[in-house]
Amino acid sequence: MELSNTTKWRILKYDGRAPLEKDDDIAAEFPLTLKLDGEEFATLVCSPSSLEELVIGFLASEGVIRAAGQVKSLIIHKDTGFAYVELEHKQTLNHDHYAKRFIGSCCGKSRQFYFHNDMLTAKTIMTRTKISAEQCIRFMQKLQESSSEFRSTGGVHNAAIGTPAELLAVRTDIGRHNALDKLFGYCLLHRLRTSDKVIAFSGRLSSEAVLKAAKIGCGIMLSKSAPTDLALRLAEDLGITCVGFIRGGEMNVYTHPERIDFGNGLTVW
Amino acid sequence: MELSNTTKWRILKYDGRAPLEKDDDIAAEFPLTLKLDGEEFATLVCSPSSLEELVIGFLASEGVIRAAGQVKSLIIHKDTGFAYVELEHKQTLNHDHYAKRFIGSCCGKSRQFYFHNDMLTAKTIMTRTKISAEQCIRFMQKLQESSSEFRSTGGVHNAAIGTPAELLAVRTDIGRHNALDKLFGYCLLHRLRTSDKVIAFSGRLSSEAVLKAAKIGCGIMLSKSAPTDLALRLAEDLGITCVGFIRGGEMNVYTHPERIDFGNGLTVW
Repeated sequence: MELSNTTKWRILKYDGRAPLEKDDDIAAEFPLTLKLDGEEFATLVCSPSSLEELVIGFLASEGVIRAAGQVKSLIIHKDTGFAYVELEHKQTLNHDHYAKRFIGSCCGKSRQFYFHNDMLTAKTIMTRTKISAEQCIRFMQKLQESSSEFRSTGGVHNAAIGTPAELLAVRTDIGRHNALDKLFGYCLLHRLRTSDKVIAFSGRLSSEAVLKAAKIGCGIMLSKSAPTDLALRLAEDLGITCVGFIRGGEMNVYTHPERIDFGNGLTVW
Repeated sequence: MELSNTTKWRILKYDGRAPLEKDDDIAAEFPLTLKLDGEEFATLVCSPSSLEELVIGFLASEGVIRAAGQVKSLIIHKDTGFAYVELEHKQTLNHDHYAKRFIGSCCGKSRQFYFHNDMLTAKTIMTRTKISAEQCIRFMQKLQESSSEFRSTGGVHNAAIGTPAELLAVRTDIGRHNALDKLFGYCLLHRLRTSDKVIAFSGRLSSEAVLKAAKIGCGIMLSKSAPTDLALRLAEDLGITCVGFIRGGEMNVYTHPERIDFGNGLTVW
């Protein structure tokens, strides 16, 4: 049974005249608690689609696994909202490292991370993949066209991975980072090569979003929204091209513009 | 020294012709780690304004304190990003309750909470405060007008508290829930009576946002965005009027419409 990402709700619609009763589509919000080798690990508040990808991607994001094969079994109880994960090699979770702040520098660079596990799993992206400015705009358009749930409920974020020319997978979630974790899970479950791919995202380019791109292994991140300063500093260090505010045929390139082809042989910086 | 919520970044702006270099305003993203009586409690990724309110509001949201007076001292080191909190009465943190899922029913109702502490701090709102549909629309307009940072960076969420007729405080943050925690801190530090107030929010009406309104003690929550189903179920139980999609003179009333006056003596439900 696939749970629906939307439900119906009876609302009063007001447009300046008398209020009207009608049924409206609402984004579903689903709490999924992960038990890792019997121990409670985290509760993800998510849209209840692609839950297997979400769990795999989240565990990889947190540095618990590096490949889908490291998960021995994954059972999801949709009625109770629990996911039971058994790892191939049971690991002793160092709880001090999860959700503990960790600021350090590594690789001789000025890189700063919040969390210890980010330092272990985020990698510098060295790809030579390029994308044209026109392709950035079309990629984002396709992401928005493919997201029917956003149009009906207005309450979800979307993320897509693909080549510069076409989208390979689109995932949706009320949690902006869950949408990226679902993509990560998709890549791991399909053993997708990621270094020549592009990620597009409807949410803001936060430090967490950029770290996830680095963990997935993609060097180009497109967004219709704004970035934060910390996200840009991380992207600069991690070798990620950040393009934001892709709207109405315009866009802003914030970091590593060498991967963007503006046409007519234009080179920049 | 007040830290700025925005910084400058050199970007390439592309509008279909040749890309142009320019300086752009970017939302600042600031990690603030809370040490509670010497022990690391949480790291909030936030906009670096109103940090004292943020800490007080966050501690109240988490059920650690109920009044600002329960904090003996609060020292914020802006250069290192640490906040040191000392409580009047040192409490033994039950780590099992923080961030552990807890689903139960209380008060004989069907209420379900994710986290144990939500059950202790969220209260059912019984207020008789009313607001007219026109006031809802004007309140949201005023929130948007007052948020200059959103206009310049596009990257922040805003929350306001006030009477139906006027805004008393507006707070901004890149983290949608931080904006609400800052309001909560403002209310506690000013000992504001909240039961006759209204909260407006630029972000989505998620379960966490509705729970925060209940903790603050406000019975009316306005948003320009969409709600989730779980947020609405909680709002129904907790006695909170949720109004969403307040845009262009229109709005949707999702729960407890008895507090909305549609004019002309119109009664609904």
